[in-house]
Amino acid sequence: MKNPLVAIMMGSQSDLPIMEEASKILKDFDVVYEMKVLSAHRTPVETAQYAEELKKRGVHVVICGAGASAALSGVVAAHTSLPVIGVPIDATTLGGIDALLSTVQMPPGVPVGSVGIGKIGAKNAALLALRIIAVADESMAEKLDAFKENQKKKILEINLD
Amino acid sequence: MKNPLVAIMMGSQSDLPIMEEASKILKDFDVVYEMKVLSAHRTPVETAQYAEELKKRGVHVVICGAGASAALSGVVAAHTSLPVIGVPIDATTLGGIDALLSTVQMPPGVPVGSVGIGKIGAKNAALLALRIIAVADESMAEKLDAFKENQKKKILEINLD
Amino acid sequence: MKNPLVAIMMGSQSDLPIMEEASKILKDFDVVYEMKVLSAHRTPVETAQYAEELKKRGVHVVICGAGASAALSGVVAAHTSLPVIGVPIDATTLGGIDALLSTVQMPPGVPVGSVGIGKIGAKNAALLALRIIAVADESMAEKLDAFKENQKKKILEINLD
Amino acid sequence: MKNPLVAIMMGSQSDLPIMEEASKILKDFDVVYEMKVLSAHRTPVETAQYAEELKKRGVHVVICGAGASAALSGVVAAHTSLPVIGVPIDATTLGGIDALLSTVQMPPGVPVGSVGIGKIGAKNAALLALRIIAVADESMAEKLDAFKENQKKKILEINLD
Amino acid sequence: MKNPLVAIMMGSQSDLPIMEEASKILKDFDVVYEMKVLSAHRTPVETAQYAEELKKRGVHVVICGAGASAALSGVVAAHTSLPVIGVPIDATTLGGIDALLSTVQMPPGVPVGSVGIGKIGAKNAALLALRIIAVADESMAEKLDAFKENQKKKILEINLD
Amino acid sequence: MKNPLVAIMMGSQSDLPIMEEASKILKDFDVVYEMKVLSAHRTPVETAQYAEELKKRGVHVVICGAGASAALSGVVAAHTSLPVIGVPIDATTLGGIDALLSTVQMPPGVPVGSVGIGKIGAKNAALLALRIIAVADESMAEKLDAFKENQKKKILEINLD
Amino acid sequence: MKNPLVAIMMGSQSDLPIMEEASKILKDFDVVYEMKVLSAHRTPVETAQYAEELKKRGVHVVICGAGASAALSGVVAAHTSLPVIGVPIDATTLGGIDALLSTVQMPPGVPVGSVGIGKIGAKNAALLALRIIAVADESMAEKLDAFKENQKKKILEINLD
Amino acid sequence: MKNPLVAIMMGSQSDLPIMEEASKILKDFDVVYEMKVLSAHRTPVETAQYAEELKKRGVHVVICGAGASAALSGVVAAHTSLPVIGVPIDATTLGGIDALLSTVQMPPGVPVGSVGIGKIGAKNAALLALRIIAVADESMAEKLDAFKENQKKKILEINLD
Repeated sequence: MKNPLVAIMMGSQSDLPIMEEASKILKDFDVVYEMKVLSAHRTPVETAQYAEELKKRGVHVVICGAGASAALSGVVAAHTSLPVIGVPIDATTLGGIDALLSTVQMPPGVPVGSVGIGKIGAKNAALLALRIIAVADESMAEKLDAFKENQKKKILEINLD
Repeated sequence: MKNPLVAIMMGSQSDLPIMEEASKILKDFDVVYEMKVLSAHRTPVETAQYAEELKKRGVHVVICGAGASAALSGVVAAHTSLPVIGVPIDATTLGGIDALLSTVQMPPGVPVGSVGIGKIGAKNAALLALRIIAVADESMAEKLDAFKENQKKKILEINLD
Repeated sequence: MKNPLVAIMMGSQSDLPIMEEASKILKDFDVVYEMKVLSAHRTPVETAQYAEELKKRGVHVVICGAGASAALSGVVAAHTSLPVIGVPIDATTLGGIDALLSTVQMPPGVPVGSVGIGKIGAKNAALLALRIIAVADESMAEKLDAFKENQKKKILEINLD
Repeated sequence: MKNPLVAIMMGSQSDLPIMEEASKILKDFDVVYEMKVLSAHRTPVETAQYAEELKKRGVHVVICGAGASAALSGVVAAHTSLPVIGVPIDATTLGGIDALLSTVQMPPGVPVGSVGIGKIGAKNAALLALRIIAVADESMAEKLDAFKENQKKKILEINLD
Repeated sequence: MKNPLVAIMMGSQSDLPIMEEASKILKDFDVVYEMKVLSAHRTPVETAQYAEELKKRGVHVVICGAGASAALSGVVAAHTSLPVIGVPIDATTLGGIDALLSTVQMPPGVPVGSVGIGKIGAKNAALLALRIIAVADESMAEKLDAFKENQKKKILEINLD
Repeated sequence: MKNPLVAIMMGSQSDLPIMEEASKILKDFDVVYEMKVLSAHRTPVETAQYAEELKKRGVHVVICGAGASAALSGVVAAHTSLPVIGVPIDATTLGGIDALLSTVQMPPGVPVGSVGIGKIGAKNAALLALRIIAVADESMAEKLDAFKENQKKKILEINLD
Repeated sequence: MKNPLVAIMMGSQSDLPIMEEASKILKDFDVVYEMKVLSAHRTPVETAQYAEELKKRGVHVVICGAGASAALSGVVAAHTSLPVIGVPIDATTLGGIDALLSTVQMPPGVPVGSVGIGKIGAKNAALLALRIIAVADESMAEKLDAFKENQKKKILEINLD
Repeated sequence: MKNPLVAIMMGSQSDLPIMEEASKILKDFDVVYEMKVLSAHRTPVETAQYAEELKKRGVHVVICGAGASAALSGVVAAHTSLPVIGVPIDATTLGGIDALLSTVQMPPGVPVGSVGIGKIGAKNAALLALRIIAVADESMAEKLDAFKENQKKKILEINLD
């Protein structure tokens, strides 16, 4: 079995229905990925260790989904030099603005690229991961162009009805 | 020299003028404390290690100040069972609401007690630390009652003018 | 029957389903507690009186849950020198941001440690109370370490499936 | 000397420059008033006592200015049946939204009428107090009509320039 | 039939279930009131006319409920010198923060006293109206004290269970 | 002298430096305009009257600038069938979000088109007014195309440096 | 068949139930319109092209509905000199505040007139389009006056019940 | 001269002092970059064209800074399959929350990775671009590890003072 190119992490098992939007996209693009529930707060040692080893294991991009005080993506970015994409999850009564600000407002020196809140964000996180992979993989770039073309067609077809 | 009872941590040297409001209070109450600049994102290993050792070193309470995506207090709470008090710092263009939500909206199982944003918060963090110490230290409880009395007097005197 | 170590107060009977998250944790840790519905606005005299007497009655920590203009924790902190933990409750159309700001933005001199909004906050309030008790109670510190270990295991087991 | 008809309270001496906007208006309308610095958190007993006695002393309306977790107006409303007007003060990094929500989101049964944030709010608080006094005082109603007329004239004159 | 002492206005028929919380209280206190649906935007002339005549008709206080860009209370305050109480209504996707800011942030010279958002606000608006009436009506003041006492009892009884 | 095509209204003289951004644009496009300070709250009768007469006087578009509880644009839209453009002005401690929500969240049936907060909004209000005039005035449409072209050039020239 | 006077665009097929509030109004006023699903992000070329051709095709006003990072109205305004009305749609967990800010906070030089969030906004967008058409069409102005009159009657009739 | 690996775009010349934080980092890492002022709203055709050609010209990552209704990063992401990093800029009275939401809340299918608001965000955008480049460039990965190490040292040295 091939090494995963993308690691999808999430802070809680309850984030799974959101983060599966990311894994579905990766599956559609035939990209090997790995999913882990690891919490910055409840499994800090394992989270750090897992993040430290990602690069050696051949992973190219990490996607981290978390809600509330969403520390996961930042903590992972602290333990790897891989590009980290954060998915803020709407897990409290505040509509996800807490997770968004916790994910995106990183201190200087430790970057996280945040996508939007929730399922749409998770889907886009996977597409951003694919764009990163495509930087050094022309066939992936072509697949992304085809995806884009297809997405355009779907919208244009609505107007034919 | 005596062991510190309170550890004051902050995510960046620029947080010092805020966090000194906490140390001033501790000094006034003759409580030994220690101040460290340690970042959840830039020195994650050292932060974890420092937090892990606090209890063994006799520390009773930890105060953590951080701005933006303020992960410090949560990460420290993940590595110790001591009570952790978070001070959200106004370090971005959003008035500290980012730091407040990052500090206070902790996931279940890893508690942080957040005080208010900025200098007032830092001062109150120290006073909350003293209240915690006073649980098992009657002389501290008396000092706190005297502080309260004095604070009341100052306000009542204004009305005499 | 033993004296309560923790007092759980709430501003309204409707806060009970939230605050029971706190009492459940205390029960799990065999800590004696007391629950009271007392409002800063509707029973101000009784609230003040109750808060004034907590320390003499042997209480170590107070947890106060309230929604909207959540004055309870602040008012209790004004009448005791015990550590006060505030639980902001989502009781209006604003998702609890009103209760959070009312709870956390205390003036200098009267500290409240706020946890997150709602049930998760209530649970963490109890855990923070236990951490405070553990400062002078080594057996409680050990129980908290075990709780932490157990919580970690539960997450790691998810990844085995 | 005549009894005050309006009591102006504020939580901190630093609120004075704001609350003087209220006293200026009362002076302009020859209404006797009294100003007190009394804090819901730092002088809770004196605040309660003062509020309890207002009605007996002939006061008709209370104006309470406070910033941050602005509990003053609510606590005063809990201790009197007089109409209470709250002035939220911009005293933190959040532009006064904390004080506004703390002032206005009162629980059922204990009403506070909040005006806008800061100096404009303080001015309007005094005018609202005058409208309340005017309910049973026709000469005050006439003065308010004249004030309104004058205010209208000032705006219309701008357009003549 | 007696003249109404309180006029309850609302901007839309859909506000009725909210504003009935106000009328219920007035009914409980045997205060004659009048309810009108009048919009600052859709019936501006009739709204102005109605507001202008309130005082002559013996009304003492006006309560105005409105959602979204809640202009009603401000427009009514512009056309009368009676005390105006605004009830912000949660009528959009923003939880009523739009109505709250539109109601409370009045320009200098035209005061509105805002209560909290929605049903609780409407109930408190009526109680604030009663407090205003009680300024010149000792029997109403006594009724309000009794209401307060009763409200206190209800809370204290919960703790007996 | 020609009749004004655009009426610029503002709620307070202090709004003038903002609204002059609108008049400058109209001057540049040789469009006759009229500026008035008229308040929905302090000159309600005159505001209504002025709005009622705009159409008969040949005005095509109204621009209304106001801060805080910005009722002006809505009230004007209630008194005319001309297109009304609202300019929310940052006049309080809340950065103009109060004026934005008051301006834009109009009830069904009474439309206001809001531009952005402050000077940029005022400038764009004038340009939107010109676009409306250009619907029936081809020479104005050409001027707007030229403006657009010029604006594009200015940006492209920056990259030549 | 007649040329459309109004083009209604939306960024996604899921916006249709919202934007039909606009088309219903146009139908009621016998104004020919055209509806298109075109995304600033997924069909950028077709969106630009469509916007570029609107004027030549005789369209007078464009209404653009979009949620989240609602770029559609701004992008359309960049490609036409017609008046553009933006309808922010509540399509995420943030209640539409994201779409509102994205729609209304346009840079200088490219104006968009935003209406309120959601269905009410869509309805008002159509009414604002009609007001724009009425600038050069007296019969439309009369229809709008009749609409206004009817709307007023409906409210006044409520009070007769 | 070598082809740029990173394109830094910004919507206005006034964004330059912010975006130079990104270019400084790239310079420090000896990465060739290109800076352009191109607006999604004022130069839409040139922006689209520039974005379309980036990949052919050998660019690996695009960084887009914009304020207010920050459409640039989304529009660029619509015209390229390269990874796009958005930098929200605090250019209005709202502290950059408008730019943040406009940048991050992208619709499904067109991903943008947003960093934090302002200078810190711009710096982190460059570091994220470097992490993306490092995916296929081991020497860059080593440089990033060294940067991280250095950043850690700087913090640890503070504690030696």
